[in-house]
Amino acid sequence: LRKALELRQQNDSIATVPLSQWRIHVCSENNFPTAAGLASSASGYAALVSALGTLYKLPQTTSELSRVARVGSGSACRSMFGGFVAWQAGVADDGNDSLAVQVASREHWPELQALILVASDKKKAISSTAGMQTTVETSALFAERVRTVVPQRMEDMKAAIAARDFPRFAEITMRDSNQFHAVCLDTYPPISYMNDTSRAIAGLVHAFNASRGRVAAAYTYDAGPNAVIYALSADMRELVELVTYCFPREDCVLPEAFYPDPFSVFASPDQVGLHLSDPAVVKLAETIGKFPAGSVRRIIHTEVGDGPRVLPASQSLLNDAGMPKRARE
Amino acid sequence: LRKALELRQQNDSIATVPLSQWRIHVCSENNFPTAAGLASSASGYAALVSALGTLYKLPQTTSELSRVARVGSGSACRSMFGGFVAWQAGVADDGNDSLAVQVASREHWPELQALILVASDKKKAISSTAGMQTTVETSALFAERVRTVVPQRMEDMKAAIAARDFPRFAEITMRDSNQFHAVCLDTYPPISYMNDTSRAIAGLVHAFNASRGRVAAAYTYDAGPNAVIYALSADMRELVELVTYCFPREDCVLPEAFYPDPFSVFASPDQVGLHLSDPAVVKLAETIGKFPAGSVRRIIHTEVGDGPRVLPASQSLLNDAGMPKRARE
Repeated sequence: LRKALELRQQNDSIATVPLSQWRIHVCSENNFPTAAGLASSASGYAALVSALGTLYKLPQTTSELSRVARVGSGSACRSMFGGFVAWQAGVADDGNDSLAVQVASREHWPELQALILVASDKKKAISSTAGMQTTVETSALFAERVRTVVPQRMEDMKAAIAARDFPRFAEITMRDSNQFHAVCLDTYPPISYMNDTSRAIAGLVHAFNASRGRVAAAYTYDAGPNAVIYALSADMRELVELVTYCFPREDCVLPEAFYPDPFSVFASPDQVGLHLSDPAVVKLAETIGKFPAGSVRRIIHTEVGDGPRVLPASQSLLNDAGMPKRARE
Repeated sequence: LRKALELRQQNDSIATVPLSQWRIHVCSENNFPTAAGLASSASGYAALVSALGTLYKLPQTTSELSRVARVGSGSACRSMFGGFVAWQAGVADDGNDSLAVQVASREHWPELQALILVASDKKKAISSTAGMQTTVETSALFAERVRTVVPQRMEDMKAAIAARDFPRFAEITMRDSNQFHAVCLDTYPPISYMNDTSRAIAGLVHAFNASRGRVAAAYTYDAGPNAVIYALSADMRELVELVTYCFPREDCVLPEAFYPDPFSVFASPDQVGLHLSDPAVVKLAETIGKFPAGSVRRIIHTEVGDGPRVLPASQSLLNDAGMPKRARE
């Protein structure tokens, strides 16, 4: 990065102070749960590296810059792009070829949506970076996963996305999430990111699929108890109705805070968790029953998004004096 | 078994009715939680096969009979012996050489004790036999575990028992329990036997070991949420005090039902869960805190036992007419 900066500087007669001596004020805000295993640090580092790349007019491609983002947080390299992104392992000893490439644009598969079920806002007991290093050192199964399972699944997943084959996409997603948490458990001492609520949600997804007679939804868990559930937009109404019924909000949380409903699944916020439109889902909901209120704290319904964007100056987080417009506790 | 019966019959002039035509009344009782993943079926099948072997005066060794017990429930072959027992995988396609051998007698290591923390009496959602077959079919990591990990650990474990090397015994026990549950999670759909209470107990054991500065206790979980904790008798007082403090009984359960205290850890039942004798354990107990009352339902404190025994006729479960003396609902 430094070399690129100096190269740029030589070619840019406008700069009177060497770029590498600029003092920079960085202000960062994140509207996602922090340190909850939902890759909030990935979004932050990707935004930082992208902003610096724009500021310095760096000539590198986004994939090349993703290498820099990776230093802050591994998965930040993926967040440099929108759409569907693969983090390539690379083969170089220094990790120099470990970077992200876009597999498909966000427009490629617009029907794909996601529900994020926030199971806990509590800080993790062990940071995921520390956890993964211990796994590499102590899990006898981790090497097998890396050697034979992951490379094949990466290819299968790219093919499933290319073909917009949801059942295939879903099964690989679930199997790989399960195996990631399996090697975490095979770590010594063991690492458990999923809790009883996480496992109940996985069970609900398998029951939902059984009830539909096809793979209509998939769960995945990162380094925390929160679930990400994927489904096509055509199945989202029944899925959201089922999830909000079985994992009811606490009375002290407003329906529109619990589930903001950006895609208008419900006719009104009053119906969140109360309305079931499909008789098969009514039956399934009764079989599964209701978990304790608040087991799921809130639900984010979203779709495949874009990557870092430069916003207009009016939305800058810094004022004209270069200081943060607002500070949070 | 049939061949053995007929052979025996030819050599035994007393029988007037062919042995293979005897009508047999079997009465079975079990004082252990049933279908809770605590190998209750193993004890029942071992008792049945052992009793039939005695009745028919079969010439087979206990290891040979263990092959028959295995047909009822795999782990029943191990329960044919007392002391420390290995279940050999065998290499024959028909499983004929898959049987149990005694590794050490119960007298070999009398200091070794066990605490069984019954986390739940609920029936399992999936039977462990069905679960394991799905694991064999769907887990990509299971083959690696069977091929490279288990054979080495079996040898290491035999050596640790022979040397009465508790830290080695304990670490293998914990690592192998974790890996068993890892391949269960790598099954599709995934199998989860451990719940949040199970994981909290594993965390408590690691914290206890860290506090002692050595591996003083080990957990293992079979096909259910209940924990078995091993420790040497010299460490049991502090461990029981800690466990009963952090996992308090419900008010409706009497102290002597919650923890019968057969080795007199506490001066009186009033002190169960209230008395902490070691300042280091006091500090640790405060750090861990108390889990909700009743998370652990009861605690069985035991030691290495013997195998099936023939009891005197006065203790028969059948009366003189060959009918059960008592029937349970």
